[in-house]
Amino acid sequence: MASITLPAAADFHVHLRDGSMMETVVPTVRQGGASLAYVMPNLVPAITTVEQALEYHSKLQALDPSVAFLMTLYLSPEITPDVIRAAAATGKIAGVKSYPKGLTTNSEGGVVDYAAFYPVFAAMEECDMVLNIHGESPSSETTTILNAEETFLPTLKALHERFPNLRIVLEHCTTAAAVEAVKACGANVAATITAHHLYLTIDQWADNPHCFCKPVAKLPSDRAALLEAATSGNPKFFLGTDSAPHPRSAKVGTANGKTAAGVFTQPYAVQYVASAFDRMGKLDKLRAFVCDFGRDFYKTVEKGWETAEDITKDAIVLEKEPGQVVVAEIGQGEGAVVPFMAGEKLWGVRWL
Amino acid sequence: MASITLPAAADFHVHLRDGSMMETVVPTVRQGGASLAYVMPNLVPAITTVEQALEYHSKLQALDPSVAFLMTLYLSPEITPDVIRAAAATGKIAGVKSYPKGLTTNSEGGVVDYAAFYPVFAAMEECDMVLNIHGESPSSETTTILNAEETFLPTLKALHERFPNLRIVLEHCTTAAAVEAVKACGANVAATITAHHLYLTIDQWADNPHCFCKPVAKLPSDRAALLEAATSGNPKFFLGTDSAPHPRSAKVGTANGKTAAGVFTQPYAVQYVASAFDRMGKLDKLRAFVCDFGRDFYKTVEKGWETAEDITKDAIVLEKEPGQVVVAEIGQGEGAVVPFMAGEKLWGVRWL
Repeated sequence: MASITLPAAADFHVHLRDGSMMETVVPTVRQGGASLAYVMPNLVPAITTVEQALEYHSKLQALDPSVAFLMTLYLSPEITPDVIRAAAATGKIAGVKSYPKGLTTNSEGGVVDYAAFYPVFAAMEECDMVLNIHGESPSSETTTILNAEETFLPTLKALHERFPNLRIVLEHCTTAAAVEAVKACGANVAATITAHHLYLTIDQWADNPHCFCKPVAKLPSDRAALLEAATSGNPKFFLGTDSAPHPRSAKVGTANGKTAAGVFTQPYAVQYVASAFDRMGKLDKLRAFVCDFGRDFYKTVEKGWETAEDITKDAIVLEKEPGQVVVAEIGQGEGAVVPFMAGEKLWGVRWL
Repeated sequence: MASITLPAAADFHVHLRDGSMMETVVPTVRQGGASLAYVMPNLVPAITTVEQALEYHSKLQALDPSVAFLMTLYLSPEITPDVIRAAAATGKIAGVKSYPKGLTTNSEGGVVDYAAFYPVFAAMEECDMVLNIHGESPSSETTTILNAEETFLPTLKALHERFPNLRIVLEHCTTAAAVEAVKACGANVAATITAHHLYLTIDQWADNPHCFCKPVAKLPSDRAALLEAATSGNPKFFLGTDSAPHPRSAKVGTANGKTAAGVFTQPYAVQYVASAFDRMGKLDKLRAFVCDFGRDFYKTVEKGWETAEDITKDAIVLEKEPGQVVVAEIGQGEGAVVPFMAGEKLWGVRWL
């Protein structure tokens, strides 16, 4: 199968930033084969009001009117049940993102205690808004970045049991344990899988800041479980790239020597996934993972974010040859971002 | 205990490099409180002949005549039983370092199959030379940098069983499993523990190239096992810093974005260890770990590398206050190296 035509993909976890980085990144959504982007709220300051979310939405839509941007709020004390109801009423805000405090980029205002938000979750359940969870526990004498996700899974299960009608997405799941936990929950719990976690294990990111992200890529057995879940045809698993652009200077050569967490995959989102599915001999499952399951879970048509016609007429063609070689960087000068697998050849994507 | 006087320390695993980096690093051996340095052979080209080792020894001795440099050869096909006998006869070459192929800096010529070297090991046993092992298995579908050391331990045990009179050092051990394996072997098997592995876990190096080394620092439970072993008074465990200087440009901001493996600790070797032992309330075990156990294992006096008088008259004073703050970098310009824990305050070391 050297050429495949699919409806436009949907990416259910993107970081589009703001300012000049936003201008660099937004045009890459469609380069990566997606016509829908589910936008994370971890700007500085974080998106915690309906007004901020709508303003951000306007900016994004102005930069690329051909993409449907679904907005999120940042779970924090400012988010009350009234805010949830107002957000749902806009028809543009689809979910609330929960960050555990301090665990990733711009998460200093994140959650310490989920119980404090039970009234918010109840309002989300009523309004049918989605809860997006960065599922990692803080490090301690027994928890490290390696088992932070697995350690979090009981919290996921407890939230699901308490709010069975709340749709929850465990974002960027990275472990076999998380895959099993999501499978074990009811239909209202799903998970996104990134493009890069279909490729990486700890050995790849250990010496390569451009492959370092949170949650970190883990063992070969975990990667195998993610590949299996993504290609399984189970509608609980769909694409959310967690594409997280940082300028090269924040990844390598910072003043304190530290590297920002995040892998930038936006311009080649479907290309990475198609190439990985091809290696698995599972290209027949690609459409479900990148186009259908996410939209179904989020009810994008039912809620009026897209029409069925939009989706089918806006099509992408994937071709193994000539394929596409990942460029060395996107953007210019200080703001340039190094994409994942720079220099490597992938399946190509073009718009029909 | 705010001040301690000890004999000069001995560092049984150092990388002193060559060229200008050697000139930068050699003077830092005594800054770190050591009068003896056991020198790794992974230059480019590697030290595989007696002549190379002696020439390297002369250069080092010229740079600092007050340090005793013990030399090693790089285990490779060039090393034959005759080379071992010639090396032992020099009185300057104390051991042979075995690198698993491709696993760390300049290890491309390393070992694939230990059985090929059994005649060499037999000659080393006869000549009473030490085998220094970088104990990690290559990555595979079941082995990653996390369990590479543990996966190697059966090889260590097998070598010890086959050559019970061969003195073997498991270098820079990083796991509770390795500590237990070394304890379970006879008295001819010991292990070095680095300064930095008394501090680091995976969470610290994940986003900080200056803390990335091979073997990687692992879990809090592993670090606890290393601290326990180092402060236990068990003579099988002694200091070998594996101080591994790389220019800043090789750690951050390389062309391909990758970072070289190695943590630079030489100028503060004893300072780091004293500070860690202090936090453990085990300063009474410091002398054994940094001065005595390594010398005993290597028989430095018996073999004439030092006199008992050398050791006792060349003394260091450790003081908690005013202590020493780790400088931002050592060396100049392109060749500058960032030391471990730059900017942090440690116990100070001065020569009496």
